[in-house]
Amino acid sequence: MSKPYKGFEPKWVKEAAPKDSYRSIFRWGDPDFVKYPKESLYKMMKEKFNMTDDDFRAYDGDIGMDRVKLDAPCNLSQDHLEALRTIVGEAYVTTDDYPRLAVAYGKTGYDALRLRGRRVDCLPDAVVYPGTTKEVEDIVAYCCEHKIPVYVYGGGSSVTRGVEPVKGGISLDMRKRFQKVISFNETDQTITVQSGMSGPKLEKALNHAPELFGAKRRYTCGHFPQSFEYSSVGGWVVTRGAGQNSTYYGCITDIVMGQKYATPAGTIQTSCYPREATGPNLNQIMMGSEGAFGVLTEVTLKVFRYMPENRERFSYIFKNWKTARAAAREMMQCEAGFSSVFRLSDPEETNLMLRLYNVDDTPLWKLLNVRGFEDMKRCLFLGFTDGEKGFSRNVADNIRRIARKYGGMSLTSYVTKSWEKGRFNDPYLRDTLLDFGIMTDTLECTVNWSNMAKVHREVRKVCHALPNTIVTTHMSHCYPQGANLYFIFITRMDDADKFKAYHSTILDAIQKSGAAMSHHHGIGKMFAPWLEGQLGRTEYGVFKALKEYFDPDNLMNPGGTLGLDLPEEEKRFLRDDIR
Amino acid sequence: MSKPYKGFEPKWVKEAAPKDSYRSIFRWGDPDFVKYPKESLYKMMKEKFNMTDDDFRAYDGDIGMDRVKLDAPCNLSQDHLEALRTIVGEAYVTTDDYPRLAVAYGKTGYDALRLRGRRVDCLPDAVVYPGTTKEVEDIVAYCCEHKIPVYVYGGGSSVTRGVEPVKGGISLDMRKRFQKVISFNETDQTITVQSGMSGPKLEKALNHAPELFGAKRRYTCGHFPQSFEYSSVGGWVVTRGAGQNSTYYGCITDIVMGQKYATPAGTIQTSCYPREATGPNLNQIMMGSEGAFGVLTEVTLKVFRYMPENRERFSYIFKNWKTARAAAREMMQCEAGFSSVFRLSDPEETNLMLRLYNVDDTPLWKLLNVRGFEDMKRCLFLGFTDGEKGFSRNVADNIRRIARKYGGMSLTSYVTKSWEKGRFNDPYLRDTLLDFGIMTDTLECTVNWSNMAKVHREVRKVCHALPNTIVTTHMSHCYPQGANLYFIFITRMDDADKFKAYHSTILDAIQKSGAAMSHHHGIGKMFAPWLEGQLGRTEYGVFKALKEYFDPDNLMNPGGTLGLDLPEEEKRFLRDDIR
Repeated sequence: MSKPYKGFEPKWVKEAAPKDSYRSIFRWGDPDFVKYPKESLYKMMKEKFNMTDDDFRAYDGDIGMDRVKLDAPCNLSQDHLEALRTIVGEAYVTTDDYPRLAVAYGKTGYDALRLRGRRVDCLPDAVVYPGTTKEVEDIVAYCCEHKIPVYVYGGGSSVTRGVEPVKGGISLDMRKRFQKVISFNETDQTITVQSGMSGPKLEKALNHAPELFGAKRRYTCGHFPQSFEYSSVGGWVVTRGAGQNSTYYGCITDIVMGQKYATPAGTIQTSCYPREATGPNLNQIMMGSEGAFGVLTEVTLKVFRYMPENRERFSYIFKNWKTARAAAREMMQCEAGFSSVFRLSDPEETNLMLRLYNVDDTPLWKLLNVRGFEDMKRCLFLGFTDGEKGFSRNVADNIRRIARKYGGMSLTSYVTKSWEKGRFNDPYLRDTLLDFGIMTDTLECTVNWSNMAKVHREVRKVCHALPNTIVTTHMSHCYPQGANLYFIFITRMDDADKFKAYHSTILDAIQKSGAAMSHHHGIGKMFAPWLEGQLGRTEYGVFKALKEYFDPDNLMNPGGTLGLDLPEEEKRFLRDDIR
Repeated sequence: MSKPYKGFEPKWVKEAAPKDSYRSIFRWGDPDFVKYPKESLYKMMKEKFNMTDDDFRAYDGDIGMDRVKLDAPCNLSQDHLEALRTIVGEAYVTTDDYPRLAVAYGKTGYDALRLRGRRVDCLPDAVVYPGTTKEVEDIVAYCCEHKIPVYVYGGGSSVTRGVEPVKGGISLDMRKRFQKVISFNETDQTITVQSGMSGPKLEKALNHAPELFGAKRRYTCGHFPQSFEYSSVGGWVVTRGAGQNSTYYGCITDIVMGQKYATPAGTIQTSCYPREATGPNLNQIMMGSEGAFGVLTEVTLKVFRYMPENRERFSYIFKNWKTARAAAREMMQCEAGFSSVFRLSDPEETNLMLRLYNVDDTPLWKLLNVRGFEDMKRCLFLGFTDGEKGFSRNVADNIRRIARKYGGMSLTSYVTKSWEKGRFNDPYLRDTLLDFGIMTDTLECTVNWSNMAKVHREVRKVCHALPNTIVTTHMSHCYPQGANLYFIFITRMDDADKFKAYHSTILDAIQKSGAAMSHHHGIGKMFAPWLEGQLGRTEYGVFKALKEYFDPDNLMNPGGTLGLDLPEEEKRFLRDDIR
């Protein structure tokens, strides 16, 4: 993918992860796809981390090429396994090592480091592959009767330890048989799918609606998280996810019309109207439940007309973070509609991204310096519009007008196109670098405009006090009232426990600075200690009351999810403005 | 306001409602403002209801001009009254007849008929006028300790018996001292107000933000229900209201950023971010709680740039309801942005509205017939755009393009301007007509596009089977997936119990037809019997669990609110698709 190196090139692992290997579990995505840094980025990292070519001659620890072999006991009785097989069919319950380990971890750095270290903290006793809503309902009922914990593995891209089967029991792997379209309604512009539906499969179906459903038009789901290719609709919904195009299409919470859950209290079918005034909103109560109230089985989503021909790409460079933020805010508040992708990088990220997007190979690179856009001060802003032609053009026109007002210089559509090429495969870089002990991970939060300078400053200050850390920051989901701040930190790190401590330090900083703990990654088991401190004790009590209603025996994703069964001493209360 | 009558003119009550009279309570709004039908509308009604001028020579029953006098006992002890006075100040607790009756009713036809009949079903024992959040918190704590029911009266425009103090106790009248702005943040474009803040006062403050808050720009709240002039922010929020401009600005649930409540479980302060992924959404749990979980004290709302100079008005006439609906759906689904007001009337409403908006006095009237837009088939569509200039123009351009595609003929901006003149004062007509035994009331629901023809047909069929009924219907809050249907029924009616039965028959029809029971009026005590049947038993159980958490002793708006303490035999389960 990159140009050949002129100097020394590390032994980047370019072969596919072997079948049934550890690597095939912890590595991101397609086993055959490889991404590694180009030479200028490699050089930059060596400098930042005080490393030499020698540090890249041998792998740092185990790269997980061998076959998974655990000999872990299954603690479920044969009777239970038989009962589950009766529900889903003989072939769809397994106690084999590999499929059990494959659903035991998500994709945070903590998971990758544990798996590289062969550290198996927990496993489901069995993996079940349901095919229908009825099967899931029967499984949940059976497990409730027999007090068997139930976990769900959708796409597996959780970065919050959301899928981890801490208490054993069973894990429902939705990838195999739970990806069907249930119905498509062109009049209402909705689609109903099984919760295991993958992003690309859904988008493909919608793009081909005329052929598949006899529709008059083509549609899009409008939801494209970076994890798109390996995430599921169910995961989007239960974690309250957001896609990179959310500034126009909305987050998943805006896109969901209705949901169906199998809970210990019974089946929950939310209503499916564009709006209603019939008491507290049940859709909004179930979204964000992260498997702790029950198993999401079916989702009805809004769909949008697919009109990529109207897309207008733009990118601008601003002189500094302050004017860039002011421009972004003005774009969000000017009442001219929103672009689909809207992404503003801070100076440290701009420094990295201009290289990642190969701007350093173009004449733009020199122009930046000539025009006074200084390295480590300048900020890259890019995106594209969607929607009807006139709407799309008007949004782009307003963005141009405002960018100019704030001293921005256009970098043409080139940078945006480069970003688009990498948007779903940047995660592959993580594994390639981690083979040499360089860890990349992310944390993100929501911040109102008036608090953004502070959150950005304080979180970065804490990150930079940690040894050998690059911290890049961008906003990528923007609103009239604020935006997310997405921190990517890159550091030398080869120990899971050190990573966890490091991660906690940054979460402390986020909470203290007054940001929301998560804009779209959810809470899971990893962020759980901070949740009650974030929301307040009386406010958080609502979650406990809901848990008690849906799952009084704590069988649904137990072991810390949303902090619901977390020991009091593990909780963190750091904000003065919250009780 | 209208031209003089040529023929007989009924003795419309044109004098102000006397101070402290029954009429001053049941009559809508400003005591000095009067609205009565013009001659053509009067003639039309006589025809529809088989009435003659003779029926309009004397009032139908009591018109409530005399002073309220009840001699109703106060069941609160002097100790309790003293304790409440200690909290809010001597002057701000009363047990007088008039202020008690003034907060005992809302504004549904059932309320008007009961009050005209001097039927006082319930009263608060005392009325309290709190001035601060701390006072409300202390009142709620005191009442919980002593098991005193707590009701809230915001603007008093409830059409669901939402404010009715069925169990006595105290009613907090928020109009006197609970209308202050707490803070305004121009950077975040938010305002925080006390929950008793009235619509006009809020809008005025925002329009004058430069003078009042030293802001750079003027702002609007974007929320204008028909009840605007006599509704409160708190009422908007706890009932999940929607304004007539919601198609652009969103319903109140989209506009609210944060809320503070005084509940028996303690103070609830929701978070105040544009989006977050931190479990079930507490803002959405509290909105719609209708006083049953606690008393809303403070609300933070988004505000929008005020740019009326960019507004583009439009109105079109379509040949029939089917093509009009198709055009409306296309406008909502074309991804070109939404207009602010978007209102489509069915043929029966069009018949009435063309007269109400004086189109029968213009050359357009003849043109309609010449061009083949037949009476009782044609459908009137009107609205206006808001937002940035290019955005606003593009929305209007797309509406024009689509209207033409579906055979619509422009009626210019004249009709929209007429509608604007009457948009907040049409409710005054109700009282003027009811003096002669003609009742006007409304019911509204949410419908997905694919079910709209059926709901419209079935609800109207039931209404028309009732004696002497005009039923007009419009959609006024529209979405890509559907719209509300707003039914206005006008009928001869002078008995509260008959009205209730009539109302129930229509609600049954709405529920059976598959619509959501309420798009934006809420549930209150009047719609409560249908709620569990609408949502499903397990789903509705969530509300009971929340009630148990917030208010285990059932002291917050008790007596049927949201059906939470409704006897099982009063509940109605009519839909096959819901358990």
